[in-house]
This record gives sequence, structure tokens and C-alpha cells, in this order.
Amino acid sequence: MTPAEAGPLTGLRVIEIGHFVAAPFCTRLLADLGADVVKVEPPGGDPVRKWGGQANGHSVWFSQHSRNKKSVTLNLKHKAACEIVLRLCARADALVENFRPGQMEKFGLGDARLRQAKPDLVVAHISGFGQNGPYRDRAAFGVIGEAIGGLRHLTNHAPGTSDLPPVRVGISIGDSIAGLYAAFGIVSACWRRDTRSGGDGRGRSLDVALTDAVLSMMEGLIPEYSVLGTIRQPTGSRIPTAAPTSAYPTSDAGWILIAANSDPLFAKLAGVIGKPELVADERYRGNQNRCMHVEALDAEIAAWSRQHSAAEADRILSEADIPCTQLYTAKEIVADPQFRARGMIQEVEDPLFGRVLHTGVVPYMPECGSGIRWPGPTIGQHTGEVLRGWLGMTEAEIDGLHQEGVL
Amino acid sequence: MTPAEAGPLTGLRVIEIGHFVAAPFCTRLLADLGADVVKVEPPGGDPVRKWGGQANGHSVWFSQHSRNKKSVTLNLKHKAACEIVLRLCARADALVENFRPGQMEKFGLGDARLRQAKPDLVVAHISGFGQNGPYRDRAAFGVIGEAIGGLRHLTNHAPGTSDLPPVRVGISIGDSIAGLYAAFGIVSACWRRDTRSGGDGRGRSLDVALTDAVLSMMEGLIPEYSVLGTIRQPTGSRIPTAAPTSAYPTSDAGWILIAANSDPLFAKLAGVIGKPELVADERYRGNQNRCMHVEALDAEIAAWSRQHSAAEADRILSEADIPCTQLYTAKEIVADPQFRARGMIQEVEDPLFGRVLHTGVVPYMPECGSGIRWPGPTIGQHTGEVLRGWLGMTEAEIDGLHQEGVL
Repeated sequence: MTPAEAGPLTGLRVIEIGHFVAAPFCTRLLADLGADVVKVEPPGGDPVRKWGGQANGHSVWFSQHSRNKKSVTLNLKHKAACEIVLRLCARADALVENFRPGQMEKFGLGDARLRQAKPDLVVAHISGFGQNGPYRDRAAFGVIGEAIGGLRHLTNHAPGTSDLPPVRVGISIGDSIAGLYAAFGIVSACWRRDTRSGGDGRGRSLDVALTDAVLSMMEGLIPEYSVLGTIRQPTGSRIPTAAPTSAYPTSDAGWILIAANSDPLFAKLAGVIGKPELVADERYRGNQNRCMHVEALDAEIAAWSRQHSAAEADRILSEADIPCTQLYTAKEIVADPQFRARGMIQEVEDPLFGRVLHTGVVPYMPECGSGIRWPGPTIGQHTGEVLRGWLGMTEAEIDGLHQEGVL
Repeated sequence: MTPAEAGPLTGLRVIEIGHFVAAPFCTRLLADLGADVVKVEPPGGDPVRKWGGQANGHSVWFSQHSRNKKSVTLNLKHKAACEIVLRLCARADALVENFRPGQMEKFGLGDARLRQAKPDLVVAHISGFGQNGPYRDRAAFGVIGEAIGGLRHLTNHAPGTSDLPPVRVGISIGDSIAGLYAAFGIVSACWRRDTRSGGDGRGRSLDVALTDAVLSMMEGLIPEYSVLGTIRQPTGSRIPTAAPTSAYPTSDAGWILIAANSDPLFAKLAGVIGKPELVADERYRGNQNRCMHVEALDAEIAAWSRQHSAAEADRILSEADIPCTQLYTAKEIVADPQFRARGMIQEVEDPLFGRVLHTGVVPYMPECGSGIRWPGPTIGQHTGEVLRGWLGMTEAEIDGLHQEGVL
């Protein structure tokens, strides 16, 4: 490895007035690439500090979710705190927030006021439904946004297969996708503003709705409905247009995922499961026929997979060069040699917990080192540093603000 | 609305040598924000032109997936075609590709060669497992990458609930997330290169693995395992730490999603379902108790929801201000007033199909108009325009290249 250089966003100054998932995930991505992120928190801290598994009363997830950020406490119910936000903005490139639409205006921190403080500030709003339109003021529950964006209906077994409800993707995926879109939008707006040839020096506002972000991932769902009238339906573990591709049961109550839908791969698979005659079977000649007779085909494969543990099946299929995998949990991810080789599992020393494993930085940029500078800060850990360093405040001023309950 | 201005990436020139989902989705996002994207295709076209629902033999999805891009055919098996790629790169800001690792080198288009043609080119590689490490050469099937990133295991009912396999999120979500990360990385690298103060004028390479991109979304999965030893498990339709929040069955074989896990919302819900006494029930006092007794609680709610159609339940709950929704399919998305108000459903005229509905541009930037300039091009629609306009070729030269099978 060449000596680590700083990430590409080094020097970009970003204020986060965020909580929970979407805005903090956005700024984590920016900070991972080197941005200088100030996380403005209420004196009680972002509620996400109490989410998920705890050790010593602290969220372990927060160690990763807020890494590389500086925590500054500000009680935005105080006018003086909002004035400090404006002064920080005057020295920043961008601000990200995920309050309910209208809340920033109530604080006196609407876009117009922010731009008085910093005319070329890039401002990103993240919310459940967006900053305009009839649903603007609805509560922004992630699961609801995912359902409205079309994802929940499709995350299910095929109609008629099961009485169980469509499952939630096991993570707050809508929030995270919205955060990722916001990060992309912020850097795009900064490029337009700052680029040497053709940069216009202007600030821009962007408005990411969780619903929009999810809908934007839905491939041909809308074009196909509009032209063909088709309403896409869930297909469970399978891909509707590729067979065989599914998760098959194993003898140890696990699953082996197999993707063998090309003709050569299917022929190999037929051999491995001891049914070479399937290749000559009219029902399975070519992917299209296999998709039509997928129930019978998957039963043949499952009859084989049930005789093996997931690990055995994985070994046998891998030796035959058939794409497959077990379903990774945290345990397999941490043990995986590929993730280790790419620095996607990093050991980080956190004063609260000792050694913590974090996932690495995406996109991987070999020149940039690990990208992890420090774990999630304690509440207000950087209040003094930022108020002194960015705003030139004295200790006496900072003490006064503490006593007034501004910090 | 103010008159439409161009998107923030106007003037950014990007070469896509991509196919299927990940790289083309990346460039769609760049093009949606204004970038000038040249999609290099083999003379037979990107195979994705035959994916999904077809009309007149053409993929309808492609209309959206490749909108705002210019199609240039180049047969990369010809050395002359690779020379043309290098000449295009000399005039470009960035290149995105998603071949198997090593394939670009085989074409004579490895990073070093690209940088000879354009020293400050930003180069983004997207692949299943990344450009290095022991799995580098494995086939990049999206479903396998999603399973290795940890997503598939969690997209399931709780252990012991069902014999059915964990479902696939109904879209190629790993590819799309990888594409979104690549778009973010490209713009970040361009900002570092081009920014007026502190820009270093250097090109950078970035390496997005589908597996890494998925893992990066997995919240506290890895930190919690490393500190607490917990292996996160799927929880079906529910959120493990919030109750009641689930999809409940309706009389018309549909589902109503309800998110009422705060105490005030739960009290409202108890009233609406005719069970106000639940509020005083010790088992349901506070979110933590409700999570512990979620089976019994969900049965109470389902007993009510089964008496109503999904539309009725939605109306009754919405009138009581309880966050809820039906599970949207294409039909409900297209009819939704919020998506319409935000321009997230756009009518586009496509010569192949007539009127097609596309999803709009994310992030929403009100100043930038619809962001949709034209639908997915026909194969090679812009070959002449780009070879003349970017490279100054004459018609005779272009005809000659056609005859030699280079284009």
C-alpha cells in the first residue's frame, strides 16, 4: 500500500443537524471520504445514541454511525444557539437536516436565513415525503415510506404461497438510501459551485424524500406499468426471469443460495446433484423453459440440497465452480477473507468499548487508507474545539453559553 | 416554478462502458443531474435492452434506465475501437465500467493506459467482489453479493415462523446501491480534482464492490457482533425494537401497514380498534413491554384489520391520524398525489412506445426542471454525433469504421 492520503472530500465542511438514520448516514458517508462534519446535537444527545445493542449504556452502532464526526451540543430552543448555527454555516460548505418540514423555519433557520449567513451554502433536506406536496406534514416512518415507494409489496413470497405478511428488509433501508442520495446531491451541488471551469459560485437546496429515494430504485416498475399495464408482483426467493436461482433448504435447517441460470451452469449443476438427465429434459431446455417449470426444477434441486449441510453444499458447488453462497450473518461477514482483504472489516479502538469492528469505507479508494479517523464522539466532545477553532470564541464565552443552557 | 436551469452536473463528461444494472444505473443518476454521458455499447447493444417487459421487441425499462445518455457503438474486440475509447477519455472527466475485474486490461484499457490518454481521469470500477482479494474473479451475481453483504439473511420471517426461504428484495437492490455509491464517489473525486481552492487536479480510481456496498448499509450489524456477540436475526414484518409496527391482514386479502409504537399513537390505535382497555394493560405499557408481548398485541390488531378492506382500514386509521399505508404497487404509485406533486411521475414521449411514465429525478432540486431530456436512445443513436462532435471525425472516417466493424 502507498502511504495513506486524505480522502477526496478533505476540506469540505458540513454541518449536520440530524438525528436517527437518514441525515447522520449521509454525513457519515461524507466524513468517510474526508469531510469535516460537525454534528449539532441537543444537550441530551441524538436519540440514536440509545438505539440497538448497548454496552455500558451506550449504543454500539453509534460508534460506527457517527465516526469521523465532531459533536457540538446546541440547544436550538435558545435563540443564541441558532445564532451559533448561522455562524458555523458562514464557515461551512453544506448543511444537512432531517427534521419534519418546516421545523428549520421555526428555529429561524430556513433556507433564506441560512443563505443570509452564507450565500453559497448547499442545503440538503431529508424527510419522509419531501418539502412540498399534500403529504409534506405526515410523520416520516421509514417502513411507511418504503411501502409507498413500492418496496414492501415486492418483498414477499409469490401471491398464494403464504399467509404471512410481506417482510421488512431487516434494516432501515429507505432511510439509508435517502442518506446516500443526499450525499450524492450535496457533492454534486458543491462541484457545480466550486469547479474551476464553469463553477457558478452559487448555493443550491436539495430535497430528498425517503419515498422518492425508494421509488427511484424500482427499475422498470413504472415504465412497464404505463406501457404494458403490468403490475409487478413479488416472487419470493426466486428471480422471475432467471432459473434456477433461489435459496434451497439444507439438512441443518439453513439455506444455500444457488445462481445457475445460464445453460452451462445449469448443466454443471445437474451433474452435481446427480441428475444429468435434466439437461435433455424439454422442460428445462433454455432459461425461458426453466422459468416456466421452475416449481418442478426447484424441487429437484431441493431434494439434493436437503441431503447436505449448508457448508457442505457450499463446498461441493464451489468446487464445481457454480455460483453459490450461504446466507451470511455477522459471524460469516467478520470471518470472510474477501472483506478482510479489502479493509471492509476494520478494528477501531473506542474509549467506550475497547476494540470495535466497523465496516470500511465505500467506495474503496486504495490510496486513502482506512478512512476511519475516530469512532463516534461523546456528546459535545468537540463543542469547545469547534467554537474556538471555527468561531474564535474564548473559554469564558463558552462557559457562559454552558451556564445559559445554550450548549 | 422558476424557469428550469440545468442540473448541477451539466458540463461533466462521463464515459460508461457498462451493461446490465450497476454501471448504467450509476450513469443514469449522473445524467439525471445534467452530466453528458456517453454509453459505449457493443454493436448488438447492452443485453439489458432485452430485459423485463417488452413492447415491439424493446425493453420498456430501458427507456428510463438509459435516459439522458448518448449511445455510441464500439466493438471493443477491435483495437481501433479501444483507440476511440482512449480518444473519448481524453475529452472526458470520468469513466465508469462494470466488466469482470481484469477485462479492461485485456482490452488495453487498464487504469494506467486510460491515464496516459487523460492524466486526471476519474475511473470507477464496479464489480461483484471488487478489484482485489481472493474472490476478485468470481462471477458477480447480484443475489449472491446481497447474501454475502448480509441482506438476505435478514429479509425473512423470524426463525421458526416459516419453512419458506428468505425472500429476495424484489429488485436488484445490490446493483443499484453499488451504482449509487459509484456516482457519489465519482463526483467526490471530481470535486477534489476541480475545486477552485485546494483542488489538486489529480485523477483517482475508485472500486465499488456490490458486497461492500450492501454491507455498508447494515447499520449496527458488525459493531454489535464485535462488542456484544449478538448475531442479528430476521424479524419478518415487524421492527424488533418498536411495537406495534407491522403489516396486518385485511378482509380483501391485502395488508395494512401500521406504525403506532409511540404511547400516544398506541392509545389512539387502541381506541380505533375498539379495545381502549389495552392502554391500561400492563403487558402493553410502554414500547418495551409491547415489544415483549408483540404476538398477543398483533393478534388484537389483526382481529380488527380482518374486518376491513385495506382501503377502509387506511381511511379509518388516517382519519385518526395514525401512521399507516396500504402496500403500494405500480398502480397506487402512479395514482399517488404526492408523487405527482413532486414530479416523481413524469410523462415522457418515447419514439418506440409513445407515452411512457418515468420516475423523476432524485434528489429533487426544484430549480432544475424535470431533469429528463430524452428517453433511452436506440443502439448507436449518437455514434455519429459524438465521433464528429467530440473527436472531429468526418463522415467518411465514420463510414469506414462502420465497414470495418469497429462501430
